[in-house]
Amino acid sequence: MQVYQAPLRDMRFVLHELFADDGFGDLPGFEEFSPDLYDAVLEEAARMAQEVLLPLNASGDIEGCRLENGVVRTPEGFARAYATFRDGGWAALASPPEYGGQGLPETVNKLVEEMICAANLSFSLYPGLTHGATTAIEGHGSEALKAAYLPKMVSGEWAGTMCLTEAHCGTDLGLLRTRAEPREDGSFAITGGKIFISSGDHGLTDNIIHLVLARLPDAPAGVKGISLFLVPKYLPGADGAVGAANGVSVAGIEHKMGLKASATCQIAFDGSTGWLVGEANKGLAAMFTMMNTERVSVGIQGLGINEIAYQSAVAYARERLQGRSLTGAQRPDLPADPIIVHPDVRRMLMTMRVYAQGCRALGQWTSRALDAEKHSTDPAVKQRAGDFVALMTPVVKALFTDLAFDAANLGVQVHGGHGYIREHGVEQFVRDARIAQIYEGTNGVQALDLVGRKMPAHMGRALRPFFHAVSALCEETAGHGDKAIAGWTAALHQSFGALQLTTGMIAQKGMKDPEEAGAAATDYLRMLGLVGIGYTFLKAAVIAQARLDEGHDDAAFYRAKLATAGFFFDRILPQATTGFLVIKSGKRSTMALPADAF
Amino acid sequence: MQVYQAPLRDMRFVLHELFADDGFGDLPGFEEFSPDLYDAVLEEAARMAQEVLLPLNASGDIEGCRLENGVVRTPEGFARAYATFRDGGWAALASPPEYGGQGLPETVNKLVEEMICAANLSFSLYPGLTHGATTAIEGHGSEALKAAYLPKMVSGEWAGTMCLTEAHCGTDLGLLRTRAEPREDGSFAITGGKIFISSGDHGLTDNIIHLVLARLPDAPAGVKGISLFLVPKYLPGADGAVGAANGVSVAGIEHKMGLKASATCQIAFDGSTGWLVGEANKGLAAMFTMMNTERVSVGIQGLGINEIAYQSAVAYARERLQGRSLTGAQRPDLPADPIIVHPDVRRMLMTMRVYAQGCRALGQWTSRALDAEKHSTDPAVKQRAGDFVALMTPVVKALFTDLAFDAANLGVQVHGGHGYIREHGVEQFVRDARIAQIYEGTNGVQALDLVGRKMPAHMGRALRPFFHAVSALCEETAGHGDKAIAGWTAALHQSFGALQLTTGMIAQKGMKDPEEAGAAATDYLRMLGLVGIGYTFLKAAVIAQARLDEGHDDAAFYRAKLATAGFFFDRILPQATTGFLVIKSGKRSTMALPADAF
Repeated sequence: MQVYQAPLRDMRFVLHELFADDGFGDLPGFEEFSPDLYDAVLEEAARMAQEVLLPLNASGDIEGCRLENGVVRTPEGFARAYATFRDGGWAALASPPEYGGQGLPETVNKLVEEMICAANLSFSLYPGLTHGATTAIEGHGSEALKAAYLPKMVSGEWAGTMCLTEAHCGTDLGLLRTRAEPREDGSFAITGGKIFISSGDHGLTDNIIHLVLARLPDAPAGVKGISLFLVPKYLPGADGAVGAANGVSVAGIEHKMGLKASATCQIAFDGSTGWLVGEANKGLAAMFTMMNTERVSVGIQGLGINEIAYQSAVAYARERLQGRSLTGAQRPDLPADPIIVHPDVRRMLMTMRVYAQGCRALGQWTSRALDAEKHSTDPAVKQRAGDFVALMTPVVKALFTDLAFDAANLGVQVHGGHGYIREHGVEQFVRDARIAQIYEGTNGVQALDLVGRKMPAHMGRALRPFFHAVSALCEETAGHGDKAIAGWTAALHQSFGALQLTTGMIAQKGMKDPEEAGAAATDYLRMLGLVGIGYTFLKAAVIAQARLDEGHDDAAFYRAKLATAGFFFDRILPQATTGFLVIKSGKRSTMALPADAF
Repeated sequence: MQVYQAPLRDMRFVLHELFADDGFGDLPGFEEFSPDLYDAVLEEAARMAQEVLLPLNASGDIEGCRLENGVVRTPEGFARAYATFRDGGWAALASPPEYGGQGLPETVNKLVEEMICAANLSFSLYPGLTHGATTAIEGHGSEALKAAYLPKMVSGEWAGTMCLTEAHCGTDLGLLRTRAEPREDGSFAITGGKIFISSGDHGLTDNIIHLVLARLPDAPAGVKGISLFLVPKYLPGADGAVGAANGVSVAGIEHKMGLKASATCQIAFDGSTGWLVGEANKGLAAMFTMMNTERVSVGIQGLGINEIAYQSAVAYARERLQGRSLTGAQRPDLPADPIIVHPDVRRMLMTMRVYAQGCRALGQWTSRALDAEKHSTDPAVKQRAGDFVALMTPVVKALFTDLAFDAANLGVQVHGGHGYIREHGVEQFVRDARIAQIYEGTNGVQALDLVGRKMPAHMGRALRPFFHAVSALCEETAGHGDKAIAGWTAALHQSFGALQLTTGMIAQKGMKDPEEAGAAATDYLRMLGLVGIGYTFLKAAVIAQARLDEGHDDAAFYRAKLATAGFFFDRILPQATTGFLVIKSGKRSTMALPADAF
């Protein structure tokens, strides 16, 4: 059974308590929002996710999308759910007020995204890509394009896509072949085929606005000759309403491992009219505005799946009766104990729980930086926040989705044989989660982004806000009166030391030989992410202990937070040691075998 | 693309070279078999797997099994493939000659099983369970049952199943409810419903022989009141031919995550005639004869999937052009380099390779013990071999399937977005591999079997042959002239030390509190398995270096073996350190959270 109640208590904790000292509430633009308003938004979002989206998750997976006479049909109920979603104002939550958005901070928006993704990952792609597309148009489009497209996209009346990949190129966009021929009226004729286009076609909206990477006739070869174009499915008329078809057709729909209710299309552009977004031959930069937003969101997709997989596994572990506790029957009134009594089942549930809570906290830290980067008026704060976002974007994307995939699989394992059966609904989480490790740049590409770009940029500047924060917290809590917290501080301090050593090692070796950095990348990203999660758990533990010492009403929550932190430091953080040992060995054994000897 | 060529060179290496010093060729019963004969069998098996089974793997997944008018229909081509398989004598390969089998050793049979599982895991279940069922009948059935059923099952004319699980019980068989009422003629009337029955129904054979766990009317409660019955789908007539239907019907067919061409059935027994196998109320012991055989085979299933996932990923990584090598273009003649040049792709391919070769070697070590346990005439050898098999059965089952699942996922990752698309055929490996971590006892149950039964039995006797072997090898190679081998020896020695420490820790704590052993189980199994694989790689490296020093013709193979070993010691074995740290922390944080606080 797919079981999901938005984890509102933990969300309120990360939103209001965990980073209460960072002055986030004072950012310009958010003055009129109150914590109560945020809570109300989260509660409404929870209701929408649980009541509108969750009931369509399993049925959408079974039915899938179909291509009929050149038109994509989404599963039963999706169009109605999308209308409810749009009419509830959810599409416009974090969009700029000047285009009709509600201008809520990303700190709140990302928590809502988590709920949507948990309840129905396939559904989340329809509004999700629209949001990314509006960001790119807002950042790089002309005033005319903004005026013509943003209000309808922000409201959710029209949808958006990003069209990058072609059959022969994904990661290496320099190879792309789609052409853009300039016309006299300033528009361009776009021709070419794109694949893997999420929400490439559907009947949820009146129009779909494609953002398409293509080459101008005189463009230089490679990535320096790529431009970004806005290509609507239907050309808007003078009145702004949907007009003539624009030569955009669906050449096929992909049969995928999961995410079956999301329409992944092959799109053919046949002399379709498009308009340049941003400068000619600078399309990749414009697209990366969208891509970076999407990368953080893909991490949040992982977090959502992690949470629903966790809750579904807990529900099953509480009700499934099988065997007796190793310490003697816990429920002698029943034919067997619920399997939650078994240490190995606990191990799996605690792992899923720690991953979810850890990612939620690290995601919130990142969202706060997203907001500060955008809204702060202090250039130093802005830069520091921007550096932190730059560092954490690949980490959130790759770490959250890797952990989510593991969590989804642990969820199946808790269910035993029943987990493998489609009707129970939990193997869907595995199949759905799998794509998040791949799209918007594979997790390997994220790791290379981290060690190859983010780490060396400005002499390691992006690492500083993160390293400073961890270092300061360790100093602060080193002499903590609570023995457990002092012990966790020592554990974090040790892993942080290993991370710093490793960083130095990679910087030094990688300068001479980029393959050294490449061979270390994935393990390094995992190490850095674990230290980041460790930071949030240590911070959370200090707060939880203080609340308990004060005699807080909600002692159960804070006690559970301490127990969860304990599991992280005892059982998950030690992985960082392996990372250190692995990276220390260098590229040698990774590159030793000649390509033809594999 | 699903790419598979049986890895005959590595198979010959583990079969003829790696354990050449263990006197295996001298076992009674195998005197007339020569190494050349084994090689010929492997070559023929490779042809059969590649030409008959592989072409049906992807199509079988897409088509799946259907239930039509109470009868299971296997996918197109399966019946013909089964006939070819049976007529080729493959069903009888390792079965006893007195029932028409060829009596080949398990060392060879398990390599053939690997090929079958690699080429078509779903198919492998049809003959695979028959083989397990014959083992149980041979070990526990009456002479009359053996005479009536074994010849036809050994030849593959009839198939077998194992019917344990009911809707409310899988791991905890003590809860099962299927009843067996004695009849005057010595037979029993079996009534009840079973689920998750692999090959529960199909049209590949004329008859299906179910081995069913059920309770006699006066049976004690729990696992001490379970008996094993042989229940044919059709009652054989006096002439041995298939006669009347026996009240066995298919109540349903499961819709699964993968393994779709294997018919997983709900079977209803309605007063079906059955015969007791073994003693009354001792059914679990009889079933475990079958189960233990199957557990090793499930590990081999994992190995098979691992190998085909590896080969498919290598093929893709060689042909997919994307980006340039970090050290400059390797193929300036092409628009981009093949992705095999990238260290992070190498990391994935090497991991898959190391897992496959490591499991193959450890599996071979286990198979040799299986043969020695069965065929040796020396009681001391027999006992030592039996101890080793007992120890390694849960390790082979759980470790191989866990690593295979990781390997299958790495294979998808190497393929990027194309890996997520069904037509490319590699996401099937993930879905197919997933069940192997669950069935025949979940991997958590395997780990508990290791720490709770195998480790403490006879004061740790089962560990001794393994620990002695590792210790002796480390001593032997400590002063090895080759620097790399000396370094790997040190690495293995260190992990082995950690394993010994951990073993002592678990034994000591677990004696007082079984939950301590339970909380350590999964990590301990992984540690022990890694040390086991490390042993085989070190042994392999010593041989490979010697062959190179001798100037052997096939230097490429031995050089590749050394490179592969190097990756294992540099990049995989360090996980054992994490295991040690995790286990050291004890059960505390695993059990800290109250069940209602999850």
